[in-house]
Amino acid sequence: MIVRAVTVWVKSDSVEAFETATTANHRGSIMEPGVLRFDVLRSTDHPGEYLLYEAYESEEAANAHKQTTHYKKWKDTVEPWMEKPRDGRSFQVVTPTSPRSWHKEQLAAR
Amino acid sequence: MIVRAVTVWVKSDSVEAFETATTANHRGSIMEPGVLRFDVLRSTDHPGEYLLYEAYESEEAANAHKQTTHYKKWKDTVEPWMEKPRDGRSFQVVTPTSPRSWHKEQLAAR
Repeated sequence: MIVRAVTVWVKSDSVEAFETATTANHRGSIMEPGVLRFDVLRSTDHPGEYLLYEAYESEEAANAHKQTTHYKKWKDTVEPWMEKPRDGRSFQVVTPTSPRSWHKEQLAAR
Repeated sequence: MIVRAVTVWVKSDSVEAFETATTANHRGSIMEPGVLRFDVLRSTDHPGEYLLYEAYESEEAANAHKQTTHYKKWKDTVEPWMEKPRDGRSFQVVTPTSPRSWHKEQLAAR
């Protein structure tokens, strides 16, 4: 299991469009077999700052995500809305280590 | 629902002890009624860097967490192992918004 925590800074006039596009990406992503979580979060203190919290079964699953149509569409769509380049950080899981504790909710995608 | 994402930098000779103490804090935390997730992650690229990903039902639940014995014990225990002060960021949830998609695994605590 690996986690990618990606901080994104969005221009102030594009936050609504960004949330819509990123929610669509979330829906596609959690249908991927190797995606365990794909949480989209809005900073409380810094307008325009977002955190994407993405948990994958493996490095291969993380790479496969970047080949999907929904990821590519999201990347191209949000590109002009970025205030500055995003900051991605990679992590290993210390705990919880049980895969079932990481389950996404498939129904949320429908 | 709110999320706290806390980055922690640990002195190189204390990472093992930090992981043990933080796993104990995780076990106590996920037993709190208002804690939905409490993930402990180790940076892949930066030795000594950790991310605590804490989801709470409410602001009140997040405050209640700081009053628990396990949190206070963790805070005091890890204090001398810190390389520099930790960086906590607060977030609102854009998606998924269904509370059941955030469920911790209670059994992991036993």
